[in-house]
Amino acid sequence: MKVARFSKNGKILLGVVDDASGTIHPLDSHLTSMADLIRFSASGSTFKTGSRPGLPLSDVKLMAPIVPERNIFCVGKNYYEHAKEFAGSGFEAGAVKGQEIDAYPAIFSKPPSTVTGPDDVVEMHPEATQAVDYEAELAIVIGQPGRNIAEADAMQHVWGYTIVNDVTARDRQRNHKQWLAGKGLDTFCPMGPWIVTADEIDGANLDIECKVNGELRQKANTSNLIFKIPQLIAAISAGLTLQPGDVIATGTPAGVGIGFTPPRFLKAGDRVEITISGIGSLSNAFA
Amino acid sequence: MKVARFSKNGKILLGVVDDASGTIHPLDSHLTSMADLIRFSASGSTFKTGSRPGLPLSDVKLMAPIVPERNIFCVGKNYYEHAKEFAGSGFEAGAVKGQEIDAYPAIFSKPPSTVTGPDDVVEMHPEATQAVDYEAELAIVIGQPGRNIAEADAMQHVWGYTIVNDVTARDRQRNHKQWLAGKGLDTFCPMGPWIVTADEIDGANLDIECKVNGELRQKANTSNLIFKIPQLIAAISAGLTLQPGDVIATGTPAGVGIGFTPPRFLKAGDRVEITISGIGSLSNAFA
Repeated sequence: MKVARFSKNGKILLGVVDDASGTIHPLDSHLTSMADLIRFSASGSTFKTGSRPGLPLSDVKLMAPIVPERNIFCVGKNYYEHAKEFAGSGFEAGAVKGQEIDAYPAIFSKPPSTVTGPDDVVEMHPEATQAVDYEAELAIVIGQPGRNIAEADAMQHVWGYTIVNDVTARDRQRNHKQWLAGKGLDTFCPMGPWIVTADEIDGANLDIECKVNGELRQKANTSNLIFKIPQLIAAISAGLTLQPGDVIATGTPAGVGIGFTPPRFLKAGDRVEITISGIGSLSNAFA
Repeated sequence: MKVARFSKNGKILLGVVDDASGTIHPLDSHLTSMADLIRFSASGSTFKTGSRPGLPLSDVKLMAPIVPERNIFCVGKNYYEHAKEFAGSGFEAGAVKGQEIDAYPAIFSKPPSTVTGPDDVVEMHPEATQAVDYEAELAIVIGQPGRNIAEADAMQHVWGYTIVNDVTARDRQRNHKQWLAGKGLDTFCPMGPWIVTADEIDGANLDIECKVNGELRQKANTSNLIFKIPQLIAAISAGLTLQPGDVIATGTPAGVGIGFTPPRFLKAGDRVEITISGIGSLSNAFA
């Protein structure tokens, strides 16, 4: 099931998307917050679409599928070739040649204020950075809460999947060493177009690609993650209770702007489109 | 003014503390959330205590003064002597001798789920870490929202100050390189005992000390911060809108457990008491 958040006539609603007909069916529910819906669903309740006819997707504005209630958990350096391109780029503080691959996942965060919708414009923030880069990523949305989750049990805590662009100010990421300052700028986390529930796709085997102005830059499969989804959930939930609606961005593959020599940073007017098989596409203009 | 959040007979209220009489005066307001109170106050409205008589402080349970609506912003390596002891401890991934002091502040975050009250017990999480350490810190609470705040204007955005203990799992901090995994465990951010409004104290000149089981471990003054409060606000707000109720922990001085050889990690049963002049004391048992 593809569950989306959208606005129509000034109201924000949740709905289920029907790809075949290109329609969205508003939920027959008092729940208008995706986090509330996930709590409701994760507690074993079922939700269903209402009796109203579907709306053409083209008639609604899709929003980021969830407004996170705390910072998004993010993972860095989680594809081999990207870890190498990052270490070799000059933008990884403390990079050591021959030690590009970490023994433990790098976990950082992006504030909820970074989240923006699938049709929204990402701000370039020229007053704060001259090195804006894209990072196509599969994101997990947590359903069942839990702490100290064993890898073997981890997938029971995944409610669904979405796409994020972990937009990064490379100069700030390098200078501040800890990454929040380079990752946390307003609108730096486009998300969407919707959440696909976990019963529908296998997060461990999804094609992911990213195009900038139509040019293919990143192409990989989530089977190439260094730390797999169960390992990430186990690592993050160690001593830290994961909550329904938490979002975990799983890392980006090779092909980001700093993987080129010289780096190919984004410019105002560029458009970045990320496609993940079984989910859809997230396309945002930068300005 | 010392504004506290407390529970009494199962209800959570806000109140103003009168040190001289040891009483707390509930606010005459419909506002029971500190974030709402700060928004209300930062927008220019005044709030006042009600006509009811004050309650003895000993008759109420103080809570963490604010429940943050996103992760707490934290600053690392922000006192010279601490930056040196950390770099020399073996627990700073990528530490380089002679380069202990950073040119830019290290900014990371702690999820709201780390926040716990001034009388609450901090969990040791033996399943996740064997290296729990304390970090006494002055924390800023933001009032007026703002983005790209100039240093010269920064103090206008400070609503008040409180104390936090930036409890850290040193093994996880070292292993995961990015610090969230070592800083984000449940209950790892005791906060309180209240917020002192910015008109009452000078955040740039406060004595800070930390005792473990009564033994003095940390003693400094906030005038020794490497990156001063206006610099921190300017750095964090670059491209990132600070919001009323945001909390910024400013970093810890020398004397943490890993500053000793061998390291002196906390044990179940220990008590850590942090005192900052003009604010008060935050004292928590670990178990």
